[in-house]
Amino acid sequence: MAGNTIGQTFRVTTFGESHGVGLGVLVDGCPAGLPLQEEDFALDMARRRPGQSVATTSRQEADEVQILSGVFEGRTTGTPIAFVVYNKDHDPKAYEDLKDLFRPGHADFTYFAKYGHRDHRGGGRSSGRETLARVTAGVIAKKILAEAGVRVVSHTVQVGDVVAETFDEAVIETNPVRCADPEAAERMLELIEKVRADGDSIGGVVAVEATGVPAGLGEPVFDKLDADLGKAFFSIPTIKGLEIGSGFASARMRGSEANDPFIRMPEGVRTTTNWAGGVLGGISTGMPIVCRLAVKPPSSIAHEQATLTVEGGETTLSVKGRHDPCVCPRVVPVAEAMMAIVLADHWLRQRMARLRPDEP
Amino acid sequence: MAGNTIGQTFRVTTFGESHGVGLGVLVDGCPAGLPLQEEDFALDMARRRPGQSVATTSRQEADEVQILSGVFEGRTTGTPIAFVVYNKDHDPKAYEDLKDLFRPGHADFTYFAKYGHRDHRGGGRSSGRETLARVTAGVIAKKILAEAGVRVVSHTVQVGDVVAETFDEAVIETNPVRCADPEAAERMLELIEKVRADGDSIGGVVAVEATGVPAGLGEPVFDKLDADLGKAFFSIPTIKGLEIGSGFASARMRGSEANDPFIRMPEGVRTTTNWAGGVLGGISTGMPIVCRLAVKPPSSIAHEQATLTVEGGETTLSVKGRHDPCVCPRVVPVAEAMMAIVLADHWLRQRMARLRPDEP
Amino acid sequence: MAGNTIGQTFRVTTFGESHGVGLGVLVDGCPAGLPLQEEDFALDMARRRPGQSVATTSRQEADEVQILSGVFEGRTTGTPIAFVVYNKDHDPKAYEDLKDLFRPGHADFTYFAKYGHRDHRGGGRSSGRETLARVTAGVIAKKILAEAGVRVVSHTVQVGDVVAETFDEAVIETNPVRCADPEAAERMLELIEKVRADGDSIGGVVAVEATGVPAGLGEPVFDKLDADLGKAFFSIPTIKGLEIGSGFASARMRGSEANDPFIRMPEGVRTTTNWAGGVLGGISTGMPIVCRLAVKPPSSIAHEQATLTVEGGETTLSVKGRHDPCVCPRVVPVAEAMMAIVLADHWLRQRMARLRPDEP
Amino acid sequence: MAGNTIGQTFRVTTFGESHGVGLGVLVDGCPAGLPLQEEDFALDMARRRPGQSVATTSRQEADEVQILSGVFEGRTTGTPIAFVVYNKDHDPKAYEDLKDLFRPGHADFTYFAKYGHRDHRGGGRSSGRETLARVTAGVIAKKILAEAGVRVVSHTVQVGDVVAETFDEAVIETNPVRCADPEAAERMLELIEKVRADGDSIGGVVAVEATGVPAGLGEPVFDKLDADLGKAFFSIPTIKGLEIGSGFASARMRGSEANDPFIRMPEGVRTTTNWAGGVLGGISTGMPIVCRLAVKPPSSIAHEQATLTVEGGETTLSVKGRHDPCVCPRVVPVAEAMMAIVLADHWLRQRMARLRPDEP
Repeated sequence: MAGNTIGQTFRVTTFGESHGVGLGVLVDGCPAGLPLQEEDFALDMARRRPGQSVATTSRQEADEVQILSGVFEGRTTGTPIAFVVYNKDHDPKAYEDLKDLFRPGHADFTYFAKYGHRDHRGGGRSSGRETLARVTAGVIAKKILAEAGVRVVSHTVQVGDVVAETFDEAVIETNPVRCADPEAAERMLELIEKVRADGDSIGGVVAVEATGVPAGLGEPVFDKLDADLGKAFFSIPTIKGLEIGSGFASARMRGSEANDPFIRMPEGVRTTTNWAGGVLGGISTGMPIVCRLAVKPPSSIAHEQATLTVEGGETTLSVKGRHDPCVCPRVVPVAEAMMAIVLADHWLRQRMARLRPDEP
Repeated sequence: MAGNTIGQTFRVTTFGESHGVGLGVLVDGCPAGLPLQEEDFALDMARRRPGQSVATTSRQEADEVQILSGVFEGRTTGTPIAFVVYNKDHDPKAYEDLKDLFRPGHADFTYFAKYGHRDHRGGGRSSGRETLARVTAGVIAKKILAEAGVRVVSHTVQVGDVVAETFDEAVIETNPVRCADPEAAERMLELIEKVRADGDSIGGVVAVEATGVPAGLGEPVFDKLDADLGKAFFSIPTIKGLEIGSGFASARMRGSEANDPFIRMPEGVRTTTNWAGGVLGGISTGMPIVCRLAVKPPSSIAHEQATLTVEGGETTLSVKGRHDPCVCPRVVPVAEAMMAIVLADHWLRQRMARLRPDEP
Repeated sequence: MAGNTIGQTFRVTTFGESHGVGLGVLVDGCPAGLPLQEEDFALDMARRRPGQSVATTSRQEADEVQILSGVFEGRTTGTPIAFVVYNKDHDPKAYEDLKDLFRPGHADFTYFAKYGHRDHRGGGRSSGRETLARVTAGVIAKKILAEAGVRVVSHTVQVGDVVAETFDEAVIETNPVRCADPEAAERMLELIEKVRADGDSIGGVVAVEATGVPAGLGEPVFDKLDADLGKAFFSIPTIKGLEIGSGFASARMRGSEANDPFIRMPEGVRTTTNWAGGVLGGISTGMPIVCRLAVKPPSSIAHEQATLTVEGGETTLSVKGRHDPCVCPRVVPVAEAMMAIVLADHWLRQRMARLRPDEP
Repeated sequence: MAGNTIGQTFRVTTFGESHGVGLGVLVDGCPAGLPLQEEDFALDMARRRPGQSVATTSRQEADEVQILSGVFEGRTTGTPIAFVVYNKDHDPKAYEDLKDLFRPGHADFTYFAKYGHRDHRGGGRSSGRETLARVTAGVIAKKILAEAGVRVVSHTVQVGDVVAETFDEAVIETNPVRCADPEAAERMLELIEKVRADGDSIGGVVAVEATGVPAGLGEPVFDKLDADLGKAFFSIPTIKGLEIGSGFASARMRGSEANDPFIRMPEGVRTTTNWAGGVLGGISTGMPIVCRLAVKPPSSIAHEQATLTVEGGETTLSVKGRHDPCVCPRVVPVAEAMMAIVLADHWLRQRMARLRPDEP
């Protein structure tokens, strides 16, 4: 009800504040029998962690996932899986000077308007650190999807006016911007470094793609696969736009061009083009699910900005400390996790569509 | 569960097929005491109806909404409100020749893959006609919002490469494309007529804006206001992209530019710009909610297209009859309805945020 | 949200008022491929219908179920199934004299306290007529259960102090009280006739049993099979008590007596006794699910009763017309329907419990 | 979906296993501004704790509740409140000898049938220890209810054939069976001690009552207040029966007796009797909510019992260690918590019933 849960069958609820005791996730609806252990989270925790390079903030967080429930002898039991990641270094004083003002571009004011109080510790639930919880849930979702032969890949395709032009999946994790075009990655880094030197920040675009998705996932009408992706992606802080398949280019296209022709392939019915982005009528076609996310420039900048205090007085703010000048590299694993969560949920839901789900 | 419901508190469920007995809506969670009668639906039914001009299909549908429950002596009772609109002219034979093939760009194949059977009557639940049910629910949502002082306006801002450049709300309903720029409207109509003559179709962009939205609507994390709008808009057939506030322009923006400065106004805290599109951290700021939707070109075109039969054989298809060459004018009332449904739901949910909801 | 829906996977929503336009049901989550036609409802509609004998009210209702959606060529399509039953004879004037007072034992006062208005037409949503909608949904649920080999049987086991002592399933539908003991049925009828002559009403007990339920249905903790049955049965108007298995006799039992010993049978693990009533830890054991429902005497009686008007004045009331002196015979098909709805829901949900649901 | 959540608005999810790392609760939907600190849980944790006397098991558990999120400076923030109680002494070896068999009366077999694996550590999610999580959530619910002037009281009214005959609330917590009749309490204890000496266990009845409940709580049809109580109470392990108001005595009552007459009191409309148990048509009347729960004898007994191994072989079992011979005293705080959770949920939901919730 209060909006901390996503999914119908594979239900993910997150809790915790960035500068409180810790962050956690509760996954309800994970089937029994999935191999799972604490080590499984290490890689994605590391990918989400800031501080590896100029591209992201240098706040060090060595996050360790503790499984509280739902796993026995290395396998899920079918009961709720809860994790917690304790905040090692939660110094509420670091935010003491923000206590009485509303940071522009942040949720300080809207939370105050909603709840009538001010929890000034680093953004509360709206902090980027909440996404850590999503990434851990995504690890489980990706394990479920592996059963179905589904893979999700995410990467940065644009920073400012630098646009990736080639795609080599192997390159993505070799550069700090997580761009699949090594040459563009260089220029993106240069731009980010320049923006940081200006005390400013910059936006970008992240692409997410899922391959191996069987035809038939998604529900008609409101729980369309694309609708649930819409919700999942816009729930990521800093996302201001989403394109699925042809996206805004659709506005200039003709039907004769945008209709993907069906073709018979050894593995089943496919289409020769994929302007639909893998979804027709809200249900997967068997082609790759292709999405692009517009990422806004981070709000925490060193520039001095005019703003208001909680009492309504005028003041100025210049955010201290090291903050991400571009959040795309950190959006990459989060977007991947959200895509995985939505697909795992619908893969399980698809079992309900037919009276005998195992009939061809 | 099966995806025909949207909303948590103000819950809208639609049912019915385009060429079945009828279409209906069930609204659960509408508070008692709202004035409501069958006449209230006439205007929006007329706006959604095709056939007024070249811009939309000429299939005549004189749809009448019958209220089945939930209203007594002209006011809602708090119990479920159900409507039905009977399909007057549901000739399943009209679709008999589509029975054995998959129309490109339509959901025929994906429904078949999902359910294992073929309901060939005009698209079943994926038909544009299902949106009629949403528009009726939107009428109720807009009445609730009127209590809160909220207004929703929607209009076509682009068709093909013709882009609206001026905005005069009074102009919207005076032209068949529902464009607020009368001069652009003319050129849009010309383009649509040309595309139709080609036996083809064309895409566009629709804008939706809500004003008067109080600060504080939306929930943190997954049920963010923008996330729920993402789900609602991508659940509309033919939508391939969504921008909220700065949208894809964010990719090229700097934080110093995109951070909307707070300012004290007589009516409360506001921002001097609105790149956020009225939402920060998923919660409304009090500024207008500003969205743009990419609309794909309709899939039903007279052009001959190669496709497959249900049995996998190759065939060709040329869709007969009169179909919309551009669906933007009909997306306008649907997008307006979806925005209203999401906002009404969150306006009611906001009552839960505080222990004493009426305290300032 | 507003409480008109039951079930997670097989979701049943009812709408309509007893003296409004009609009553309806929306079933979302019924799998595709189930044979279904309007004729399938006739038998249970007839069983629920009042007026066959002294045992129930003589208001004539020839209810016809109209399927509005979700069925194509005699099979469910996987999309929402909506029915409506129009109220043929809805004369709001019949209730005009009740307009300004609160009937004792009825929901008039509580609805007024909740919604702030008075819908006096025969009880609105709290009327026994709403159960007609449940019975139609139960017909679908029983068809799903037939796939799983599950059967539900319901019958009257007590009226006043007359208690059934034998059980012959074939006898149930041969007498108007729906009692499986023909001799007790006779005495129950005599008692009911005597109570009616007194202008009064009488309570009773209804038993409901499901056989063939596979082991493993139900979820731990809150969505236990018995918890969901608890909700379903107490949602039936006039139910004041529920026993599952040993029920209140448990209070006097010892563990050595109440623990059902496991035994190996050709068809699988069973227990030699069934004090558990077919449920252990909230999950079905494979033994019959055994429930008993306490039914209160109907509130509409000819006796003159003191009561209050809406404005708070004192008045008296004597309910005119023919009303059920004992509601047990009509609770029988409703209780059967509710048991079927809960079991169908959990049979479908059970598909989610394991990663590979088809593995033994 | 997987059944670990209860409530619509005030949503309580529990996680954790009795012999795993710990137990926890996630409360989503608690309004902002409620005073809350870790000390608030101490009293009810102590009441639930076993080991104080002959009446309950002597396993020592000094449970400490750690708040992980949702509280800032001593008040709830409106975001999810998560607690964890670490299991101090979780020795999985203690259950090693139960690894390969199904304990009669326990959920070992049904979990195995559901999930296909055996988690033998003390019952997993079906253990009585899971109720600790409910009690902590109940503490918050009772704080919300205090705002509404609602109080919940629970006590043991029967053990075996010993029935309480007087009621003095002050007596309840002064005796280990939690009985409000001091003389009956003595005899209950004697009976329990005798049963324990026999290596056996005994059932009983627990009463729960809520006073000060405003008229108007509960939703028509499925989310009736009594239906939600039915679900909540039957979700407590060991509950086999429930009566609300007149309960099974209804079977012998006449309408002229069971209809509670309305009367005008200074505090509003009330009834002179309360056979309804405070609920009419599923909605609270303003009179006390009165419930009685049948509690089965605990399944863990020292008696030697025949049973089966996981592989299907015959074996015998005699449960070692100290176990509760009667679980009523421990059901008391759990039943109280469940009543509070249901009432708090409906008190918040009631805000949705009217367009202007604050109008009289």
